[in-house]
This record gives sequence, C-alpha cells and structure tokens, in this order.
Amino acid sequence: MHMQRIRVVREALDANNTIARANRLDFDRAGVTVVNLMSAPGAGKTTLLERTLARFEERVGDGAPRMGIIEGDVHGNLDAQRLAEFHVPVVQINTDGGFGGECHLDANMIRSALPAMPLDTIDLLMIENVGNLVCPAEFKVGEDHRVMIAAVTEGEDKPIKYPLMFRACELIIVNKVDLLPHLDVDLSRLLANIADVHPGVPCMLMSAHTGEGIDAWCQWLVSTLRPQPAMT
Amino acid sequence: MHMQRIRVVREALDANNTIARANRLDFDRAGVTVVNLMSAPGAGKTTLLERTLARFEERVGDGAPRMGIIEGDVHGNLDAQRLAEFHVPVVQINTDGGFGGECHLDANMIRSALPAMPLDTIDLLMIENVGNLVCPAEFKVGEDHRVMIAAVTEGEDKPIKYPLMFRACELIIVNKVDLLPHLDVDLSRLLANIADVHPGVPCMLMSAHTGEGIDAWCQWLVSTLRPQPAMT
Repeated sequence: MHMQRIRVVREALDANNTIARANRLDFDRAGVTVVNLMSAPGAGKTTLLERTLARFEERVGDGAPRMGIIEGDVHGNLDAQRLAEFHVPVVQINTDGGFGGECHLDANMIRSALPAMPLDTIDLLMIENVGNLVCPAEFKVGEDHRVMIAAVTEGEDKPIKYPLMFRACELIIVNKVDLLPHLDVDLSRLLANIADVHPGVPCMLMSAHTGEGIDAWCQWLVSTLRPQPAMT
Repeated sequence: MHMQRIRVVREALDANNTIARANRLDFDRAGVTVVNLMSAPGAGKTTLLERTLARFEERVGDGAPRMGIIEGDVHGNLDAQRLAEFHVPVVQINTDGGFGGECHLDANMIRSALPAMPLDTIDLLMIENVGNLVCPAEFKVGEDHRVMIAAVTEGEDKPIKYPLMFRACELIIVNKVDLLPHLDVDLSRLLANIADVHPGVPCMLMSAHTGEGIDAWCQWLVSTLRPQPAMT
C-alpha cells in the first residue's frame, strides 16, 4: 500500500514537472516573469496583491510592470472579483472537483488557464496559490520565483512545522507586523526559526494593511523583470 | 489521467473509511470519545488544548475527563512537547515521508498511533490534525466529533473559500476574538458566511489567549463523554 502510494505520487510529480517545463517555455517566449505566491489561508496574499496593483497603477509608464493574475481557490471567485477592479487580466482556477477540492495548484491547472491569459501584453504574472503550507510547495508550475507569506499571527513555530514550504521559497514576506504589539509572538524568534530551516533566505517585513514594506516588495518585483527584447 | 486520478482517490478514501471503522470499534470498546480538531496553520489548536488541559487539571475528580492527545504535524514535535507538560498521554505523528509530507492525518496514521495510547485509562481523545483547511476534512479517522477553529485573523471569507471544512464540522470555534479591535474584520459577516455554507452549525466565540470561551468549550467536551459502564 505504502509502496504503491509512493509510486503513484512519484508518477504524478514527474508528470507535473513535464507540464511545468512546457509552461516555462511559454513564459520564456513571451518574456513574462512568473511568481508563485503561497501561504497559509488568510495570511494576506490577496491584500498584498491589491496593494501591489495599486502601487503599480500609480506608476504606469514609469517602469511599472503590466501584471496578470491567476487566482487559485478551492471554491468561489471572491479574490478574482477583488483584483478585477484593477483592470488587469485575472483568471480564476477552482480546484474543487468532487472530493472537496485539491489543496494546491499544479502545472496542468496553470496550463489550462493560459489560453485565457494574454501573455504577450503582460510583463509579470502573479499566481496566487491555494492557501496551504504543505502541498503547494511540492508542485512546480513553471514559475521563475517562489515567494511565501508568513503572517506573524500564525506564531513563531511554523518554519519548524512546515519546513519544505519555507525551504522552497526564495523570498519570505513576514506579514501583519502591525499586529505584533497585540500578540504573544517574538518576531526575532520567528526570524531565527526561518533562518534555521532556510539559512540566508531574505525576509521582508510587511504590513499589507498599513502599507509598510510595499515599496521594498515592488522594487523586488521590478528587479525580477526580464529585459525587454530590443525592437527590430 | 483525470479519470485514473479519480479512481485512485476513490480507492484511497474507501480504504481510509475501512480503517476508520476499525478505529471506531476500538474507541467504542474503550468508551473513549474522540474529537478531531482541525484548522489552518496557526489558528490556535495547541493553545486551545493547553487551556483545556489546564482547566480540566484544576477540576480532576469533579467530572473532568481524563484526556489523551494525538498530535499531527508534518515535521517535529514542538506541540507534543508543549502538551506533555500536562502529564497526559501524548503521541506524536509526523507525516513527512520523503515528499515534503502529507497535508492531513488519515485513519491508518491514527491506527498506527493507537498502540502507544492507553485508551483504557482515558475518557477523551483529542486529535490535533495537521494545519490545513482542505484535505483533513476529507479523511475520517474514526472520530465521534469534528471541530474546527477559524481564527478571525484569517478574514471573513474563509467559509466561502473552504466550504467542505466548514460543512464537515459540527462545531466551529471562532478564535482570537481579542484581536478584533485591531483588525479590518467584520465578525457578523464571518458568522453569516459560516451560516451560509453550514446552516445551523453552532459557533463558539473564543480567545484561547485571554481565556474567553474556554468554559463553554469545556462544558461542550464534557457533554460529549460517554456514560461510564456500571460496575458489575
């Protein structure tokens, strides 16, 4: 039973990686940078995207990327509705299919969403994954960068309990820092736990609520953009 | 590919249910009430268990149940260490096995833990599931009751985005209400969203941090205990 399960999981991950490479070729061809944004439920992914879109909207023509969003949710399209107000292309993926829903996005779901996403008119595709600290880290989707949000309200111990997610990401956003005065959470201990499981990973302190940290995050995003091909 | 996956998932859930029934027979024989406690990461499951154990410790001999705990985590035993201070039997299950870890407990994991749990000396077995709002709701483990914690810090929209979890539980604990004055979260809207996806489900307002709601929760737990068999 266990060996059979391991075989099934391995086959699924191999198939996923093949499709992720196909997605990646499409992103390369279009010159689009792709960020896979992951977190536990309610850590602030959608609010961060709202703040990001608002910031770039203020700076259109001043080096701000043209963004597209793929929204992953088990059910519903609340987040897509919130983000569509910014007049950028938003494609919703729902993962519920009869068993209560997949707990992560995979490469094939992203592939299915691409025909609805005008890659040639955007520079930056943000993928908001399903809120979950386990399985999203196991499924690559063809992204350039993996970023996670850890909300301080979740406590200091999450890096130790969900190490794969913290190791899989190359940038960790520590969100909701405005709530620290009201919590029994030691920020330095959280940062030390992150450093223990992923030495050297950059952490960005953020309050998507107050706007603290949004500038640094937007600068990081701009730094990931691909050079635009010269006109011929 | 999709049909094959559906078949594999169905087989896995069928096998899980068979083992869950075997667990249930063992719990019935021992007269133990079993509660499967689920939530997103960092919603306060372990803190609630600490408060519960402390409250029952004060009342030993006054109808307080003798508790045992099964701790589910992808990795590590931080929570089991916290709870072991209360001198109750605690068994740790780690779900990491080579692929980054299972994102839920299943009936077979619980079955594997039972030899280490002295069922004959406890009245109430609390199972702290892996922090995740998706898959734990799909895998029964032989429990009598399923309870979830929804932290207000996660926002109002989670019932709509993770409906299966909210529907699977017969009691919903709305935790961290002490933080409401510092959040942009409308409690009445959260409760209305819960009522939309699971009409009539009881909700218990709680701050495991301040102790608000602990009495009602402990009374609920006591109400679930099985009548002790008469001495013969």
